[in-house]
Amino acid sequence: MKKHEFKDLLNPETVALIGSTSRNRFYFLRSLVSAGFRGAVYPVNPKVRSAFGYKFYSSLLDVPDDVDLVISEVPARVTPKIMEECVRKEVKGVVVFASGFSESGTEEGIRLEKEIVKIARDGGVRIIGPNCLGIYHPEHGLAFRPDLPRDPGPVGFVSQSGGHAINFALIGKVTGLRFSTVVSFGNGCDVDAAEILDYLADDPKTRVIAVYVEGVRDGRRFFNSLKRAAAEKPVVVWKGGRTDSGSRAAASHTGSLAGSPRIWDSMIRQCNAIPVKTFYELVDTVLAFIFCPRVEGRQVGLVSISGGSGVVNSDYCSEVGLEVPQLSESARKKLSGAVQNVGTSVANPIDLAGSFMSPIAVKTVFETLKEESGVDSIIFELAVQYPSFYADFIEDPTLSTAFYNMLIEECREAGKVKPVLIAIPQVAYEDAQRYVRDLFVQAKLPVFPSVERAATALANIINYYMKTVQRK
Amino acid sequence: MKKHEFKDLLNPETVALIGSTSRNRFYFLRSLVSAGFRGAVYPVNPKVRSAFGYKFYSSLLDVPDDVDLVISEVPARVTPKIMEECVRKEVKGVVVFASGFSESGTEEGIRLEKEIVKIARDGGVRIIGPNCLGIYHPEHGLAFRPDLPRDPGPVGFVSQSGGHAINFALIGKVTGLRFSTVVSFGNGCDVDAAEILDYLADDPKTRVIAVYVEGVRDGRRFFNSLKRAAAEKPVVVWKGGRTDSGSRAAASHTGSLAGSPRIWDSMIRQCNAIPVKTFYELVDTVLAFIFCPRVEGRQVGLVSISGGSGVVNSDYCSEVGLEVPQLSESARKKLSGAVQNVGTSVANPIDLAGSFMSPIAVKTVFETLKEESGVDSIIFELAVQYPSFYADFIEDPTLSTAFYNMLIEECREAGKVKPVLIAIPQVAYEDAQRYVRDLFVQAKLPVFPSVERAATALANIINYYMKTVQRK
Repeated sequence: MKKHEFKDLLNPETVALIGSTSRNRFYFLRSLVSAGFRGAVYPVNPKVRSAFGYKFYSSLLDVPDDVDLVISEVPARVTPKIMEECVRKEVKGVVVFASGFSESGTEEGIRLEKEIVKIARDGGVRIIGPNCLGIYHPEHGLAFRPDLPRDPGPVGFVSQSGGHAINFALIGKVTGLRFSTVVSFGNGCDVDAAEILDYLADDPKTRVIAVYVEGVRDGRRFFNSLKRAAAEKPVVVWKGGRTDSGSRAAASHTGSLAGSPRIWDSMIRQCNAIPVKTFYELVDTVLAFIFCPRVEGRQVGLVSISGGSGVVNSDYCSEVGLEVPQLSESARKKLSGAVQNVGTSVANPIDLAGSFMSPIAVKTVFETLKEESGVDSIIFELAVQYPSFYADFIEDPTLSTAFYNMLIEECREAGKVKPVLIAIPQVAYEDAQRYVRDLFVQAKLPVFPSVERAATALANIINYYMKTVQRK
Repeated sequence: MKKHEFKDLLNPETVALIGSTSRNRFYFLRSLVSAGFRGAVYPVNPKVRSAFGYKFYSSLLDVPDDVDLVISEVPARVTPKIMEECVRKEVKGVVVFASGFSESGTEEGIRLEKEIVKIARDGGVRIIGPNCLGIYHPEHGLAFRPDLPRDPGPVGFVSQSGGHAINFALIGKVTGLRFSTVVSFGNGCDVDAAEILDYLADDPKTRVIAVYVEGVRDGRRFFNSLKRAAAEKPVVVWKGGRTDSGSRAAASHTGSLAGSPRIWDSMIRQCNAIPVKTFYELVDTVLAFIFCPRVEGRQVGLVSISGGSGVVNSDYCSEVGLEVPQLSESARKKLSGAVQNVGTSVANPIDLAGSFMSPIAVKTVFETLKEESGVDSIIFELAVQYPSFYADFIEDPTLSTAFYNMLIEECREAGKVKPVLIAIPQVAYEDAQRYVRDLFVQAKLPVFPSVERAATALANIINYYMKTVQRK
């Protein structure tokens, strides 16, 4: 019997949805419709005749077509019966949404999980899950929620948690990240993180891999896969259950043994993957990888509107291992010519103060930092509370639009040479903040909600590139 | 000659604005008008006849009235002349906005600063600044920007940086914080952080004091004032220039010698003040002090919608020194009755999953956590991407409104007994996020944009209260 690979499940021609009900408004059916799934969809539920224009079948065995992938929403105790039908129907794989298996810690749950694994192994059917959301693969129109972006992109995400898989896929709408493949694999009783990593390592559409993992059954296999993947492309790993209480929560969430955080951390580093500690650090680091060029030096040029910001932004950068070097004599001279006001600093950090909205000053800053050999990257703090307020103040809204467009152009040009990270902190002026952020995101520039977060992401990618030999 | 105290400058009956020009659209004049200053305002500029309905005077000496406070916008080199006029006019104090004094590092700047200090000392006039924005005191209608909240509140902020003073005052609009007194004092050549701290320590309208400081001239005096203030009320201290590059930036920003960060940190702790490392940690910690009751235990009840969130939220809490205890047998039994779905956890963290929007489940959770003796506080992660999505999904927007109103009521009730911190993370659904956040802020509940930030703030206030003997 053919052993299907995880990748065989990603491009199904036919999907059957088992247990799709009106109770949850045909959640998975609607997800596939929203994602624009191009193959055939066969919903199965003996109590429903049709929904969304789809005829329902009483049983999987009644579906008058071959079925590649099954998405099962039936409860845990009914799942073995469904698995047997899947074997008879010769489906390639099943996403098992239900929880109540080994993660419940009950004898019954553990027995049920063993039973479905046995049926699947004997019958040549793969399982994703149980206790998971399954696959978001926008290119093929597979999705586990109806509100995810339809267009694909270069980010792969392997997540033991469905909640984190949803959140990361959704945050793409805000950050500009798009996905090749996102998999929520839950208890991972069959298809596990290692196998998905193997796939993403080889997938030419995936440029950066993110991982959320609580625990693995076969540590050696996971770390082999992680090492191989990290040799191909950046792999950012967020380990859940790093503390005693987190581990305890992980055990009841996905039945995982979380393991020692120190061992995990050192293994992740040995694999040359990048460990992160929070959801936002995961998102930010992936964002920096996707939207910044390769960078192999720690020296950052810092630009802001206020002296106080310059001070604390220097602190934030230094604390994550970046350096804020004094600029060369010639650079400072050049900047002094363009940044007129007293009270500004041009030594780095650069504090533009009253010259913040001067096109000459901003252009000179980018030109100077782009050319300065002692500066490897640029963090620009865009404090919208100044230009937006000022445009209101002088009653000329076109002023700020012109300023932002000019700034985007400068960031784009400089961004071809060195990483340019834009921080738009939240203070007030939230409409402006979002409007301006969206302008930058549309221009495919990496935007962060604070300089701390930009600096942390930048330090992560620099650490990676400085350890990694450039591939040809 | 009377030595005026800082507090004498806060309630002026007359303010003169020197150097108010159309070039910056009469910034300070507009700020006073916006803040509703109730006394008399006399703008001085020989080149302007009137603006905003105010007659301009050619010189301070022409003003036909006593002047309590002067706000000077003239350049550094003209400031000594203005100071002399202030002495002749017997004003109590002058806010010197101009930079180009000692912070410039130039001989000229250092000389000018010495000169204005001498004139002021000899003549009995106090200086705030130079290189500063001065005073925001909403109760008396003083403000350094026209877009700050007009209503006063219980937060005092002493800031060496004008930018941070603006940002903190502005972020009140979003977080619900309001201010008694905010002072940006820049180089602090006369009125310094210590004197403002002394005032805020005694001010009955100030319940919590925030401090941003880069360096102080008289360390012993500053720490005496800090210690005295911290004995009266919580004082949260953000030290800028904690790193070499941050110190260098501080030197050119406010001419401050930043000093060893380790010594600062231990001195702040010795004073029983609370050291923080970022702007947002400052804001969050003040928010927790203002909107949470006193708490003297580290055990937190964690509620979220997803198992994965429960795991990482437990990690975040543990990493900042909180504990996530298992709930008692009876609490778990009670919760199991209300939280129906399989796949949820009721042990703590509580993962509501499908019961997230069930009023019975939510009410039972709050009732149980409120009564559970082993739980000292509650962090509720409100993932608006679920209720908002679900309300769209079932096409019933009233559903989410009803849910949020119910939740606010529960948080309010429980918040009377134990701190309840609400985290509304940013994922997508930004309109909903903001709408819901504003509902909670209006209900005077402490809202944070992530569980990490809520947990950090909570840990800070717990550390403070557990070290502090309760005052009668």
